[in-house]
Amino acid sequence: MKQQYGIKDIAKMLNISVSTVSRALRDAYDVNPETRKKVLELTEKLNFKPNKNAAALASGSTKNIGVVIPFITNYYFSTVISGIQEEAYKQGYNIILFVTNDDLDREKTLLRNIATTSLDGLLISISSNSDTQDHFEQLMEEGVPMVFFDRVPHHIHVSKIMQSDFDGAFMATSHLIDNGYKKIAHIAGPKELNFTQERMNGYLAALENANLPRNDDYIIFSGFSQANGYTDTVTLLSLPEKPDAIFAVNDRKAVGSIQALKANHVQVGLEFGVIGFTNDPIATVIEPNLTTVEEPAFEIGKQSCSLLIKHIKNKNHEPHDILLPGKLVIRQSVKLSQDS
Amino acid sequence: MKQQYGIKDIAKMLNISVSTVSRALRDAYDVNPETRKKVLELTEKLNFKPNKNAAALASGSTKNIGVVIPFITNYYFSTVISGIQEEAYKQGYNIILFVTNDDLDREKTLLRNIATTSLDGLLISISSNSDTQDHFEQLMEEGVPMVFFDRVPHHIHVSKIMQSDFDGAFMATSHLIDNGYKKIAHIAGPKELNFTQERMNGYLAALENANLPRNDDYIIFSGFSQANGYTDTVTLLSLPEKPDAIFAVNDRKAVGSIQALKANHVQVGLEFGVIGFTNDPIATVIEPNLTTVEEPAFEIGKQSCSLLIKHIKNKNHEPHDILLPGKLVIRQSVKLSQDS
Repeated sequence: MKQQYGIKDIAKMLNISVSTVSRALRDAYDVNPETRKKVLELTEKLNFKPNKNAAALASGSTKNIGVVIPFITNYYFSTVISGIQEEAYKQGYNIILFVTNDDLDREKTLLRNIATTSLDGLLISISSNSDTQDHFEQLMEEGVPMVFFDRVPHHIHVSKIMQSDFDGAFMATSHLIDNGYKKIAHIAGPKELNFTQERMNGYLAALENANLPRNDDYIIFSGFSQANGYTDTVTLLSLPEKPDAIFAVNDRKAVGSIQALKANHVQVGLEFGVIGFTNDPIATVIEPNLTTVEEPAFEIGKQSCSLLIKHIKNKNHEPHDILLPGKLVIRQSVKLSQDS
Repeated sequence: MKQQYGIKDIAKMLNISVSTVSRALRDAYDVNPETRKKVLELTEKLNFKPNKNAAALASGSTKNIGVVIPFITNYYFSTVISGIQEEAYKQGYNIILFVTNDDLDREKTLLRNIATTSLDGLLISISSNSDTQDHFEQLMEEGVPMVFFDRVPHHIHVSKIMQSDFDGAFMATSHLIDNGYKKIAHIAGPKELNFTQERMNGYLAALENANLPRNDDYIIFSGFSQANGYTDTVTLLSLPEKPDAIFAVNDRKAVGSIQALKANHVQVGLEFGVIGFTNDPIATVIEPNLTTVEEPAFEIGKQSCSLLIKHIKNKNHEPHDILLPGKLVIRQSVKLSQDS
């Protein structure tokens, strides 16, 4: 389309540097407010828009960050994206969204077609069935800056940001133990995911720490949905020796679990404890309200984005592993014992 | 980065047209599967990536669609984005996300800085306090293809896709009336939003249709949150003549309303009816489960994206207004009278 004035013309007219004009247009924090006002008034008058494609070819920078995620319609991921978006906006980047539908084939197709020349870097959370890592290693070899978050690959030397799944699961399970529950089941996610393993390990460590035996009948791997939580719980209730509490890998499964228990006339929070992991808003809607471990989802998004931008600006920035702590949120689905 | 082969080289080596290579790389549906396989094998061997910036400058097409939305952490908007994403993926477009946080200033800043040269078009849902439309008209004059969805501006001649708010609200209110409720309140959204008005008009039309009087004390405008639903309901319960039912502008407000009623020992679904609008997953978690009108959120996303691509491909494509119907979902928060 018609592009009559360039950024250089604006700079010349106002007698300031090109970089100041550029920073003013980006709303960068280190521009004199008055200067910014002048730039904005002039660009508005001239109806000037920076041509980002031309700028990208010239500078090698596109100001676009690609975000590859399994879903957006769940609370956790949409909150992470909010955090990413907030940081990206602050630093003048746009985010381009790639949704894999938690499907390895689509993940591969998307990554194969990602034109890395139109992106400065990638934030990635892998799909549940992502057993191979070739498609990531390929991009790494090309020197594409990358940060993985939440669902991360095991064996690649690259920056990763996660909540501390082990600690959170240990905390959740210990909260059940401290309040007198002894036969604690764990309804887990898909076995091959790293964070499923980490949460199970935290659960097992808490049992061991309290000298409680491990019972493999009490560990069920399945999907992440409310429906999965329901059916897993029905399975547990059909055991000859029923559990007296459940630690669910996420809040949606915990909600399904509470619904199954209520359908089977088990009094949740009195005779049976349920604890989740996420702190999804549904935790305050289900009755009894769900005791859970809060994930720092917004913070994970913010820090992932901020770390990626460091990698973009300095290609020699060393990969980091960052673990953010969770927080126990006590509500009514776990009965508190007198002495705790 | 290193870019040794171009799309023309690939085409020459395989003795096919450049456009076939391009379509094969995009996974377009009209490419012979065998040809696509050959193209993918060769591009993999050569480690070829299309340079999208160069391609964009050459063709004037970027294959990027900008999506401007108030939020992503709510069920409705994240579902709309899923629908957009699904259609965009199918047609070989990427989506770039701009989140306004429902704030007019940020909306304006974002739109002012949007480099329309790096986008083929825009999908927009406006912020609640978007009283001016200049920033949209500006982009329209530049010839940027645009489709508005859900929250749309009143007076611009441009394509708009919405659920039928009037019909849905009429349906919801009539469902209460048909089941014997007579003093029906409406807890609404912010007054200046078009769809707030439409839903209120549907509510008023249903009252009029049943010869029930309008009572302005029974209409409360506030925000969209669960907390807003709670406080609006507390206000209604303090009236000398209390209502016997509430039609809430969305499910989150309806959930807050049910919580307020329960806190005040009012039996929801028996002595007091509550109906929502959305069909958010929390509708099946709150007790009693929420009767509501389901919004076609995924479909709105899909159709908005598909319509935008028509505008992109044909600059003379006439603007359309599309209204998608909602659907009554009967659960337990409205008691069904014997004869209905």
